[in-house]
Amino acid sequence: MTQPSFSRLSALARLVRYHIVRSTTAAGSGHPSSSASAADLMTAVFFTQLRADLKNPLNPLNDRVIFSKGHAAPLLYALYAAGGVLKPKELLQLRKKSSRLEGHPSMEFAYTEAATGSLGQGLSVGVGLGLAARQLRSRSRIFVLLGDGEMAEGSVWEAAALASHYQLGNLIALVDGNRLAQSAPTMYGHNLSVYERRLRSFGWQTAVVDGHDFQHIVPALKKFSNPTDKRPKAIIARTLKGKGLGEIENKPNWHGKTLPPEVARRVLASLGSVDVSATGQIKTVPQVKLEVVKSFAKPKFTAYPLGEKVATRKAYGSALVALGKVHPKIVALDGDVKNSTFAEAFLAAYPKRFFEMYIAEQNMAGAALGLARLGFVPFVSTFAAFWTRAFDQIRMAALGLGNIKFVGSHAGVSIGEDGASQMGLEDLAMFRAVLGSTVFYPADAPSTERLVHLAAKTPGIVYVRTTRPATPVLYSSKRQFSVGGSVTLRRSTKDQVTLIGAGITLFECLKAADELLRRKISARVIDCYSVKPIDAKTIRAAAKQTQAIVVAEDHWAQGGLGDAVLEALAPVGSSVPVIKLAVKAMPHSASAEQLLRMERIDATAIAAAARKTLGK
Amino acid sequence: MTQPSFSRLSALARLVRYHIVRSTTAAGSGHPSSSASAADLMTAVFFTQLRADLKNPLNPLNDRVIFSKGHAAPLLYALYAAGGVLKPKELLQLRKKSSRLEGHPSMEFAYTEAATGSLGQGLSVGVGLGLAARQLRSRSRIFVLLGDGEMAEGSVWEAAALASHYQLGNLIALVDGNRLAQSAPTMYGHNLSVYERRLRSFGWQTAVVDGHDFQHIVPALKKFSNPTDKRPKAIIARTLKGKGLGEIENKPNWHGKTLPPEVARRVLASLGSVDVSATGQIKTVPQVKLEVVKSFAKPKFTAYPLGEKVATRKAYGSALVALGKVHPKIVALDGDVKNSTFAEAFLAAYPKRFFEMYIAEQNMAGAALGLARLGFVPFVSTFAAFWTRAFDQIRMAALGLGNIKFVGSHAGVSIGEDGASQMGLEDLAMFRAVLGSTVFYPADAPSTERLVHLAAKTPGIVYVRTTRPATPVLYSSKRQFSVGGSVTLRRSTKDQVTLIGAGITLFECLKAADELLRRKISARVIDCYSVKPIDAKTIRAAAKQTQAIVVAEDHWAQGGLGDAVLEALAPVGSSVPVIKLAVKAMPHSASAEQLLRMERIDATAIAAAARKTLGK
Repeated sequence: MTQPSFSRLSALARLVRYHIVRSTTAAGSGHPSSSASAADLMTAVFFTQLRADLKNPLNPLNDRVIFSKGHAAPLLYALYAAGGVLKPKELLQLRKKSSRLEGHPSMEFAYTEAATGSLGQGLSVGVGLGLAARQLRSRSRIFVLLGDGEMAEGSVWEAAALASHYQLGNLIALVDGNRLAQSAPTMYGHNLSVYERRLRSFGWQTAVVDGHDFQHIVPALKKFSNPTDKRPKAIIARTLKGKGLGEIENKPNWHGKTLPPEVARRVLASLGSVDVSATGQIKTVPQVKLEVVKSFAKPKFTAYPLGEKVATRKAYGSALVALGKVHPKIVALDGDVKNSTFAEAFLAAYPKRFFEMYIAEQNMAGAALGLARLGFVPFVSTFAAFWTRAFDQIRMAALGLGNIKFVGSHAGVSIGEDGASQMGLEDLAMFRAVLGSTVFYPADAPSTERLVHLAAKTPGIVYVRTTRPATPVLYSSKRQFSVGGSVTLRRSTKDQVTLIGAGITLFECLKAADELLRRKISARVIDCYSVKPIDAKTIRAAAKQTQAIVVAEDHWAQGGLGDAVLEALAPVGSSVPVIKLAVKAMPHSASAEQLLRMERIDATAIAAAARKTLGK
Repeated sequence: MTQPSFSRLSALARLVRYHIVRSTTAAGSGHPSSSASAADLMTAVFFTQLRADLKNPLNPLNDRVIFSKGHAAPLLYALYAAGGVLKPKELLQLRKKSSRLEGHPSMEFAYTEAATGSLGQGLSVGVGLGLAARQLRSRSRIFVLLGDGEMAEGSVWEAAALASHYQLGNLIALVDGNRLAQSAPTMYGHNLSVYERRLRSFGWQTAVVDGHDFQHIVPALKKFSNPTDKRPKAIIARTLKGKGLGEIENKPNWHGKTLPPEVARRVLASLGSVDVSATGQIKTVPQVKLEVVKSFAKPKFTAYPLGEKVATRKAYGSALVALGKVHPKIVALDGDVKNSTFAEAFLAAYPKRFFEMYIAEQNMAGAALGLARLGFVPFVSTFAAFWTRAFDQIRMAALGLGNIKFVGSHAGVSIGEDGASQMGLEDLAMFRAVLGSTVFYPADAPSTERLVHLAAKTPGIVYVRTTRPATPVLYSSKRQFSVGGSVTLRRSTKDQVTLIGAGITLFECLKAADELLRRKISARVIDCYSVKPIDAKTIRAAAKQTQAIVVAEDHWAQGGLGDAVLEALAPVGSSVPVIKLAVKAMPHSASAEQLLRMERIDATAIAAAARKTLGK
């Protein structure tokens, strides 16, 4: 296939702008000016470089396109229309309830690699896709369109550093230097050499081009399209916001504003002749199906002796190794704490399937989404507290339908002396508030193994919370665990109170039950290892059969296990009181034992709360 | 005062290392090796540069020291001991329950500028302190100690970009290039020129020095200590992890490990002669008291006509302007969405008290903490969804006792066509799960004004959630609002059901009450504008006086208003069912009205839920 001439590209770019204006004016909202600035750049990418099996967006040989500046979605759709895979009529459905063409790219549109719209995240997804392509021995290239405004996001620089460290020559960033951000000019305006110097210092090959001149763009793209050159590449394009859109070109205060119909008419007329039937050619690739693991053999579970003390974070490491043996697509990522999370066990067993992501949690989460897109199942670990760093990326991974398993170690005050900054105390609240998520919190080693296995089998975002100190083995390796399940560890027909714990507090509940029994109070004890979904049936039965519920959790009082228990009871009502014991005061450096006591989530506090509530 | 000689500095550094080893070995946990690498660098800072009124850590003329690598806390304490303000004996209390010397710097220690321990955040706090110093016309310098590992965090580069943009010549970064991170060497090892090139490309003045040679360190510090040179400065020091600690010097696998007593004895002996009574001189500054606004006049509230439609985000802008008039320490920060959050109104009124922070939410939150430290009251705004980007900084701001008011606009699906990526649907869960936070969610313009006023009066982290579409004015400008308050808008002795809403859903509750009344069902309607703390008394009364509660919220089902309502009922039990209506399906681009319907949080769904629960 010969390359299209510059005049042919210009004609296609006019068509693309025509679509941008028509679709956004029909929608009455959207970002025509931010779309138009990148129109020439992306027209060149699509019709001189892109190689894709359009019938199969998941073909591993496909080049990939990510709009990190997701608000340029009208451009994305216009390009596929110009490429002949979308009917122009459909573009007029932009942003409508029943349309797959949403305001920012979503997974409803099959060519969307990752839902975007929160700026600065696309390059991390590109890093993940770049790593995935390398694992799959695919020569595909990953094109990421970035706005100049979003270059202020730190996550971009996390991705930039890792991309050059891992020599991702298949990653090509396109920076749309249109100078005007939403509310004001960017810090550097059209002084694009700033971005060039910075990207070079981060190990990238760069070129600054006139982003509206195909004579500049096309050769630069050609030069940068060879994935065997090991440096990631960036084309930094001098562009004008609203370029080609007549009276709004290069004007401030046109961010996120559509052209009123009369302005749109004038602008469309000023575009010159537009061949609405023109179709750009997107090069194709051999038809290859992405390998996705749908089922896999049961991993070999460890026979932990009952009562032996094993930290669940350590059990996580060996569980992941066992899983990696039966599931070839499992990969592990960690943010320089692999010797604390025990992800290092996976590194030792499968060095080619482990990625050290250094101290950059945002990029780690974004890259996991890219890996997941191509059939890998990433287990991604850091301290539970530090997942807060990537909440935006986690949120977007859920919108992007990512199949990612997050693991947070060092949960709660039970970490001890390191102090509050290292204690994950909001991770359950955070992961519960993620669309469609599953949240596990195992108490012992065997349940950790089973739940890590279950995490791999459960689609979507799964969070596994692990504990720093060693805890006694409670369960045999034969015990079954399920999504939405629980284990009732103590139970009798005379139970007066129900104690609910998970993780470290489960052991405090058990001790409290012993203490209560000495006072002739029979307590039911439930291990709610599945925090989301929670075992509503068991909890509701307990509310009926006992006179009070005490929930103890090593987490702030909001959004965690206690709230999950309340949620289970809410629709049916519960006349019995539910006492939520949780971390309520600023935690201090101290021993784990002292901290559980100070925060009143230890056995003594649980037993006291039960007695007080029962009036005994 | 003359500068100490190099041999005097060496003696002080030996003393500092002596304290580091003794305190961490006594504690049995901590980070001696990471403390020792920066010992010479920081000894030089403390005893050749630092100027501080040690009796008054908040003196605005004081130089400031932030340990961004918070795990080097033993070094921080050792330096103050060497400076004579801490007794060596106290160092042996490190990490103990009753000690102010925590595992990572906390606000219990008066010289801590910001709680640290989550890496990569200190430079942003430094940016805030740098801006604060400029506002206060103080010539103080801000010294920020960073680890080389944390240079991978994007937030560092957000801060670096903003610092040079705002010409913060008073900001001096000290990069401890010890090559070894927690679990592995850093990406660049001792190739420190990488950091130098990067920082230079970000507009910084830099020097690479031998971090264990005072002949290198002291002149570099002197050269960089002039705050009138407008570039921020970085000293990048080649150091060895565990430097001076004998057998562990420059050895991997000694991160976060203390020396066993017998090793400590050998290491202490190898230090050579240590003068335990030596005291380094820290230069002083004139005694000046930081101006803190303790009370302020009531702002002039707007007389919004009842029924007029005004977006609460717009009311936020005018409320902040009114507040700025009566409270001189209020400043506003915004992340390039000031024309959407309406922070632009404050910029127009008080340009010198507004800081455009560009698209870098993490740095914005960290800088707010720095500003708050010096008595400013920052109101910090972006889209509610994008606060997830800064959750780690918000968490740390709470541990740092920051007095910061976060404002999130564009809450929930009611934003409409822009789609899910722009919808704040987890912000209530996130801000509720912040230690000591207050969360407001006003429904109309007058309540927004009152709650913004209340936010300024309420210490600590306060979150105000605003809405994109205009909503009708419900309240007169005389109406009082309170922390933990609510307004019961409909009430009779015959109420069968209670409808609870906040923000946009309050209006749906009111419409649902009308609809129910047509079917002879009397509904109580409560505006729970104070989501945390919530008005438990009113909710408990409603649970007693009506037969069901329906809560409707424009937020995921977890962690928001519904969970807050359940929390209020939990301790007393509630036999009436609580139906939580919330956003449960992936939101799509559509109109606000369509989305409220699709997600079943509109009046129709509320009325239907009420009828179903009542069996009518």
